[in-house]
Amino acid sequence: MESRQLVIVGGGPAGLSAAIYTARANVDTLLIGCAPKVAGDYEIDNYFGFPETINGRELIERGKRQAERFGAVLDCDTVLGMHHGESGGFVVKAEKREIACKALILATGVARLAPKIPGLADYEAKGVSYCVSCDGFFHRGQPVAVAGEGIYAANQALELTAYTKDISIVTNGKKSEIKPEFQARLDRAGIPVIEARIEGLSGEAGLESVRLEGGRELPAHGLFIAMGAAGSGDFANTLGLAREGAFIIADPEQRTNIEGVFAAGDCTGGFLQISVAVGEGAKAGRGAINFLKKGA
Amino acid sequence: MESRQLVIVGGGPAGLSAAIYTARANVDTLLIGCAPKVAGDYEIDNYFGFPETINGRELIERGKRQAERFGAVLDCDTVLGMHHGESGGFVVKAEKREIACKALILATGVARLAPKIPGLADYEAKGVSYCVSCDGFFHRGQPVAVAGEGIYAANQALELTAYTKDISIVTNGKKSEIKPEFQARLDRAGIPVIEARIEGLSGEAGLESVRLEGGRELPAHGLFIAMGAAGSGDFANTLGLAREGAFIIADPEQRTNIEGVFAAGDCTGGFLQISVAVGEGAKAGRGAINFLKKGA
Repeated sequence: MESRQLVIVGGGPAGLSAAIYTARANVDTLLIGCAPKVAGDYEIDNYFGFPETINGRELIERGKRQAERFGAVLDCDTVLGMHHGESGGFVVKAEKREIACKALILATGVARLAPKIPGLADYEAKGVSYCVSCDGFFHRGQPVAVAGEGIYAANQALELTAYTKDISIVTNGKKSEIKPEFQARLDRAGIPVIEARIEGLSGEAGLESVRLEGGRELPAHGLFIAMGAAGSGDFANTLGLAREGAFIIADPEQRTNIEGVFAAGDCTGGFLQISVAVGEGAKAGRGAINFLKKGA
Repeated sequence: MESRQLVIVGGGPAGLSAAIYTARANVDTLLIGCAPKVAGDYEIDNYFGFPETINGRELIERGKRQAERFGAVLDCDTVLGMHHGESGGFVVKAEKREIACKALILATGVARLAPKIPGLADYEAKGVSYCVSCDGFFHRGQPVAVAGEGIYAANQALELTAYTKDISIVTNGKKSEIKPEFQARLDRAGIPVIEARIEGLSGEAGLESVRLEGGRELPAHGLFIAMGAAGSGDFANTLGLAREGAFIIADPEQRTNIEGVFAAGDCTGGFLQISVAVGEGAKAGRGAINFLKKGA
């Protein structure tokens, strides 16, 4: 498996600012992230140093060139999950690569909202879950569904094959965006992708079935939420990071509750601004540099 | 007296970032600061958004244009002191103006080091003081000395005339930089400026005299330290701000222990970087905006 000193997840201002610091300090840095929110058609007025309005896309391009100038490797890949390594450190699984690393900086931006599924909150901890590697075990041998439309959902469904054979993906009304390579793996595992909206959940003590539009009842002992792309909340779940609601808890030095894992920018909440994300990224970078030096 | 909603003290990245936010939110903002540290001949590599090295002076110029674009008034003046207003708010006294304001942001950069005077620490709280408005009262009618070479020392000496007539300024080996207008006021008050190094302090229970180079003993019941320009520590003293060593204590929202006073950047310690200062400035700006709205 590919090995790096540091993986930064997220290519917005926080992640890039961290990469500038770590690469400049000769830390072997891989940043995985694509299309950060800021790189949309935003016009930015209030980030110190740009007297004329700057376009978000241009600012991100400038930051990328800056990080690469110091040797950071930037990869436009999609992170599907991460977990603790068997002999310490962490493993980051992305669409195109899997990387072992000693330190992690999460800069994944604003947390995803929970999908609108009637009754979802009623079945949390009673079958509804956000983390296969946390809860898959409780559903061994049982029918389970994964709510999602992309490769994050596909990956979660494939991880569930360790526990059960009866797995379905339900897109909750979206069009499937699962890429061919993942679709082929789902086909081989006998996992159907159902393009239908979820209209309700039912069950007595715990979840028993998912009602799809048109009235079909899909038996489900577990429902794993994996809409869109994996985000900070999903990574927090699998790593065991302390959260406050949707946000990862980071101290003033951007340390999380797990040694070697730092978090910066919007995924930690607070004032969601480029200015703040850049400062937090710098501090997370310094934290990672010091952590890696200590271990060297 | 001139009146403003907000005065920001310090024209480096933290102060300018704060001004960009507050002026953009239509807060009547006056920033007083001149020649921030960053505007020296620094080459800056690690502030997100500048792929090629940028010169510190240029970065500051860009930030000044940006703050002015949104209506902030920037004044290259020297702040000599600040205190609580008689009917609430604060009063900032600068060389050229005196301003009443409702909110304050301190972004004054790294704290000054204590001057090298043999025995200084032994006489702290026994005659050595850093704040005329705090301790002048304890020396009423007694001989006192002010250590300093500039208009900050001159202003401290002039403030001491409220308590005693026997006041001397000792430059501690530096050349006097007191401007003619202040020198004239010192002359009128009968305050000599002695260009000599301080070689020792003496006294039994408390300070009794200051030994100057050449052996002269200058009677001094109090010695007020006012070398260089007034800084965060001096302002903290007169306002009653909580400090940790040389640094002003600010919470994660950049609030100090006094409502309406915020602090950002190097004067609050931590990781002394432009990136961090800019983020803290933004948060202090937001804090001031919210504080002023609440009072409106």
